[in-house]
Amino acid sequence: MNELDRFFRPDSIAVIGASEALTSFGARYIQALLDISYGGRIHAVNRSGSEVLGLKIYRSILEIPEEIDLACVCVGARFVPDILRECLKKGVKAAIVMSAGFRESGEEGSRLEEEVAQIARQGIRVMGPNCFGTYCPEGRVTIIPGGAFPKEAGSTAFIAQSGQMSEFVTGRSFGRGIRYSKVASYGNACDINEADLLDYLMRDEASRLVASYLEGVRDGKRFFEIARGNSGTKPLLVWKVGLSRTGAAAASSHTGSLAGARAVWDAFFQQTGAIRMGGLEELIDTMVGFRCLPEGCGRGVALVSGGGAGTVIGADACEAMGMEMRDFSAETMARLSEVLAPVGTSRRNPIDLGNPYPSAQLLRSVLEIVAASDGIDVLVIRRVFFSEKVSSLLVGPGAMSHEDQEELLQVPVDTMRRFGKPVVIVLSEELTGVEDIELEEDRRKIRDFFFAHNIPVYPSEEQVFTVLAHLAAFKRVRLEGPRTADRRPIEASSRGRAVLSEIVRQSSTTVLDELRSKKIMKEYGINLTEPLLAQSRDAAVAAAEKIGYPVVMKIVSPQITHKSDIGGVRVGLANPGDVSRAFTEITAAAAEKVPEAVVEGVAVQKMAPPGLELVVGMSKDPQFGPVLMFGLGGTLVEVLKDVAFRIVPLTRQDAKAIIREIRAYPLLEGYRGQPAVDIEYIEELLLKVSAMIGDNPEIKEMDINPLIAYGDGAIAVDARIILEESTIKASGE
Amino acid sequence: MNELDRFFRPDSIAVIGASEALTSFGARYIQALLDISYGGRIHAVNRSGSEVLGLKIYRSILEIPEEIDLACVCVGARFVPDILRECLKKGVKAAIVMSAGFRESGEEGSRLEEEVAQIARQGIRVMGPNCFGTYCPEGRVTIIPGGAFPKEAGSTAFIAQSGQMSEFVTGRSFGRGIRYSKVASYGNACDINEADLLDYLMRDEASRLVASYLEGVRDGKRFFEIARGNSGTKPLLVWKVGLSRTGAAAASSHTGSLAGARAVWDAFFQQTGAIRMGGLEELIDTMVGFRCLPEGCGRGVALVSGGGAGTVIGADACEAMGMEMRDFSAETMARLSEVLAPVGTSRRNPIDLGNPYPSAQLLRSVLEIVAASDGIDVLVIRRVFFSEKVSSLLVGPGAMSHEDQEELLQVPVDTMRRFGKPVVIVLSEELTGVEDIELEEDRRKIRDFFFAHNIPVYPSEEQVFTVLAHLAAFKRVRLEGPRTADRRPIEASSRGRAVLSEIVRQSSTTVLDELRSKKIMKEYGINLTEPLLAQSRDAAVAAAEKIGYPVVMKIVSPQITHKSDIGGVRVGLANPGDVSRAFTEITAAAAEKVPEAVVEGVAVQKMAPPGLELVVGMSKDPQFGPVLMFGLGGTLVEVLKDVAFRIVPLTRQDAKAIIREIRAYPLLEGYRGQPAVDIEYIEELLLKVSAMIGDNPEIKEMDINPLIAYGDGAIAVDARIILEESTIKASGE
Repeated sequence: MNELDRFFRPDSIAVIGASEALTSFGARYIQALLDISYGGRIHAVNRSGSEVLGLKIYRSILEIPEEIDLACVCVGARFVPDILRECLKKGVKAAIVMSAGFRESGEEGSRLEEEVAQIARQGIRVMGPNCFGTYCPEGRVTIIPGGAFPKEAGSTAFIAQSGQMSEFVTGRSFGRGIRYSKVASYGNACDINEADLLDYLMRDEASRLVASYLEGVRDGKRFFEIARGNSGTKPLLVWKVGLSRTGAAAASSHTGSLAGARAVWDAFFQQTGAIRMGGLEELIDTMVGFRCLPEGCGRGVALVSGGGAGTVIGADACEAMGMEMRDFSAETMARLSEVLAPVGTSRRNPIDLGNPYPSAQLLRSVLEIVAASDGIDVLVIRRVFFSEKVSSLLVGPGAMSHEDQEELLQVPVDTMRRFGKPVVIVLSEELTGVEDIELEEDRRKIRDFFFAHNIPVYPSEEQVFTVLAHLAAFKRVRLEGPRTADRRPIEASSRGRAVLSEIVRQSSTTVLDELRSKKIMKEYGINLTEPLLAQSRDAAVAAAEKIGYPVVMKIVSPQITHKSDIGGVRVGLANPGDVSRAFTEITAAAAEKVPEAVVEGVAVQKMAPPGLELVVGMSKDPQFGPVLMFGLGGTLVEVLKDVAFRIVPLTRQDAKAIIREIRAYPLLEGYRGQPAVDIEYIEELLLKVSAMIGDNPEIKEMDINPLIAYGDGAIAVDARIILEESTIKASGE
Repeated sequence: MNELDRFFRPDSIAVIGASEALTSFGARYIQALLDISYGGRIHAVNRSGSEVLGLKIYRSILEIPEEIDLACVCVGARFVPDILRECLKKGVKAAIVMSAGFRESGEEGSRLEEEVAQIARQGIRVMGPNCFGTYCPEGRVTIIPGGAFPKEAGSTAFIAQSGQMSEFVTGRSFGRGIRYSKVASYGNACDINEADLLDYLMRDEASRLVASYLEGVRDGKRFFEIARGNSGTKPLLVWKVGLSRTGAAAASSHTGSLAGARAVWDAFFQQTGAIRMGGLEELIDTMVGFRCLPEGCGRGVALVSGGGAGTVIGADACEAMGMEMRDFSAETMARLSEVLAPVGTSRRNPIDLGNPYPSAQLLRSVLEIVAASDGIDVLVIRRVFFSEKVSSLLVGPGAMSHEDQEELLQVPVDTMRRFGKPVVIVLSEELTGVEDIELEEDRRKIRDFFFAHNIPVYPSEEQVFTVLAHLAAFKRVRLEGPRTADRRPIEASSRGRAVLSEIVRQSSTTVLDELRSKKIMKEYGINLTEPLLAQSRDAAVAAAEKIGYPVVMKIVSPQITHKSDIGGVRVGLANPGDVSRAFTEITAAAAEKVPEAVVEGVAVQKMAPPGLELVVGMSKDPQFGPVLMFGLGGTLVEVLKDVAFRIVPLTRQDAKAIIREIRAYPLLEGYRGQPAVDIEYIEELLLKVSAMIGDNPEIKEMDINPLIAYGDGAIAVDARIILEESTIKASGE
């Protein structure tokens, strides 16, 4: 049994802070449990009460004469730590802290929350604080206000930091046929966080889809690893909010989470195959899609429209979402010509039936021809189904009878059954006035008829294609198989760590110079122009002779970071005379411009031939840890910000994808007769950098700029590593 | 009286093709007119009928013993021309052709449509073919099926090519409080097109907003001019579909329109201030917004949320749409602190009330504090208003009473009245099952209460901020004042035309060489490196001496377009020897590589000093005519496609905006210590190019590449003009 099971299927619950007032959180929670027919024992606890909802109120959890599986704490924030200590004493292993007034409300709250987290570490798992609890039909527990939630279980799991969203999302989705395995509102996540819940739900056999509403993440690294490790096994829907400036600030006052940077979240979705939700409707729409079509679907679409305008709108939405409206074969079009009217229709994809009221016979013929057609993975039908009332409103005397309607509704169900191809339906609201409410009722009935046959129904084309794109993406990820981080040979790793440790020991500054930075990189197999340090003119010439001309020379001094600005760099030095002169000039310039600088010498290195200048960098994201950046080098690219990111460690697919993600990618492939560069080599190099970063948490930032790429290989020409402040301090002590 | 008035307020209507069968289009149209209480006389016409809906059927329109204001034609396509000729004979000045089977259905249909268009030019205005007609409550006419449409008039006008969309959009919008001045479904637009209707509606006093659904445009240039000429006077909403590949194909089968290119439509919106609609919901949402707030609104938002999650979602949506969640002053926050609970709330913007059920007193205090706060232009309230049923479902025993609800609903109405600041409300569906239909009914009642007080209500934050962004954009355009194309001096223009005419007369090819292209450009005051043509070594040296060193030399031959590829270009020639040698080498290379080429000579021109390389180009869009392009020059930019477009002629604002639209714009401003370029000079240059293009319809394409820009001025280094095929043919005859 997993320790989180107690939150969803507890044998007994103590509600602490359940006063006699029925509007209190505790009493409402008990009422909700009673309403949903919770089957275990409920105990009420309050310092000063006698009875609530027919239950005796104990003064303390310690007075309850039996074991408690789950404590639900609804007392004022400042009382929470003491209550939890009593729970610990009582041997309770799981507690939901609903109370607010913690990290989200300032300093004192943060202190209290830290205290709660410490107590949790002593043997009680805590969900919350500042949450609404859990809903699990199987265990007959529910959130507040969830007494009226369905007792019927389903296969969708949902986690949300926000209590209100846990209630709002589930509440909205029931009417659309969604039933849940488990829902958790986990609030400030001081103990149980999104990663714990994701891990739990990914293993949970009752849950076939995991959806989430995240303001921030507490353990991004682990959330990322779990998501990636399960890519393709279950759809993971992530609605990440708080990425805007004010959104992040609002999130911080709401649950105190830091919102991750947009680019890193982009990487998260690329790397894990998790499906990004843009909002509430999209989240529920996508749940509906996966409930009906749990395997996902292919990209090839045929659209059947009752009327021409919808073909245009549908085609636009299809392309915008990356689905493909596939051309029909001549044979398919010929067959369609046999059944469609000659005027006012279209037999190309998207098909225009001519008007919105086809006979069942016509619709059946069209769907069967299309379903049998090659390259069509999914059939979308729009503006074909209407209730009798709408039909008589729109068509007048020629309107559909009840029997006609029933026959028509059956057609897509039969087609799907016979051809095994998914069908999705656009069923719009027609009139939206108060007086039209019956039309909406009828619309919902038609919708539910299709839902019962696993045919997803949406009010608009945009929604249909948004969901189809998610279904198709999931299918692709599923077929792709597991995603595992690339592994590098152990030897390089241990040598690399040794070199870094030695450098850390010697270094008095966090910014490593080019020589030291490259020394570490070299151990990881990164091809680079190796600098030789020269402390005299003769030594410089000797170094150049050893390296081979032309060479580049640069000043080496911890005090001089912008070397070019003070005349500390010379390039294209072609002979001993050049080198000798350059040594004199560089050292003189340094002495003149930065008199206080301690000059360690001049670095001499091979001058790399011209090629395509790239940049590889790394920094640390507060939520996900080390992140690798790739892009084109040079000023123009800085302006255009044409870079892409991946969370470390990378898989081989990540290395391939990050390179192809930048807009300037055609340059790498060889644009306008320019030679292509060695893309495979760069992929390999990115994996080496990823390994180096993964091995050495002491590295805070890093960049190779430029990395010059050629038709054959690439070479790191300049490089820098910056260490964590703490590393230097610790070793300096 | 405008000639289009007849389509909306006809005194008498003849319905031609009205058979006895009540399901026929003609009979349905008559029924719709009767249903909407059309007040004029209706006459039915059919070759073979006796009576329909109590009306005598005439055999021909010529038999009707009175004048006919509007003919509505519903006969088979091939009969339409004859019917229209009869209408002409009868003296009818306006006809709606509802029949399909024209341009949208192939060659024969296109021929028929051309015939219809020719008849129209003889004195009868035609709407259609392939349309549903017009709806105008004032004139008591309606589209099919629009018999049940409201008789109440409003101030919204709507035009749609698609008949179905005219019905679908209006039908959906009535329930949301929209009432119309005029609606036209204009189909294939063989005579009356989008530009005619826009012109008419922009002058129509009854219409305060004009909305449109466009698949393509027939007279893009005029539509553009009318839209720009009226910028800021009335909101113009444009839902342009068919911009995707398959969408364009579908549009073409639907109404036969060519869909415009995406980039040119981007320019259209930038230049006209028309408001781009992304779909049906957005269109209706925006109509609702302008109905309630016809002046638009400012950008500063305060959000008041019942619960924390919504503050995050709202802040995200706000930023995504370019609205601004403004920080409150310390004083405002202090005042809010006095009324908000200390825990679980936020007094920063967005405000979290703590829970979704504030007292009227609390909400009133908060709204008044916020409305009085500086920088706040609009108040958004979310998840605060619920029906009694929802409230008791969510809150249980503490739920709102009917009186409480009424008091609460009054609060935003009072605030808006007292402070004159717009209030917008998010009112979501809570439960969506068939059994929850009463909740939706109650929701609509609350919505309509607010609508009645000109408070827009939407189901989601995304919708609210999308509409607010449109309202704010309109207000900005309105304040900006009229947009008029820049005017150039007449002299340049007539000299330029003379030079071009002369060149056209002499030219045997459409591609003008650099010398001739620059000759035309020079007349328009475009600064350029002027090439001198040399036909001997001595002449080349003399030219170089005249120009001053260094110079560039290029082969001049109509057969050689890629001059560099064959060694036909030399740069950096610094003295007579260089020039002399270059002449020999260039001519030799041409003779060897392109022996068939007729070499006119070698052009010698000043070598421009290095600067920022830009490109200015022009091509013709099939819908909007000449379009100007601006971007950064060079290979990298080609790959990144960092260019922007404007429809010609440009206003000065256009010239400013196109430069600032490219992503690389920071380079022009001087990035990282690089010098800034002379942006004003480039603006002026773009206006000169725009004038040149406007003057000379013979120019099919043009480019200046590169235009080298400096801190002071810019110079066109290479240039080419391509003439229309027809120009050369015509002058060659």
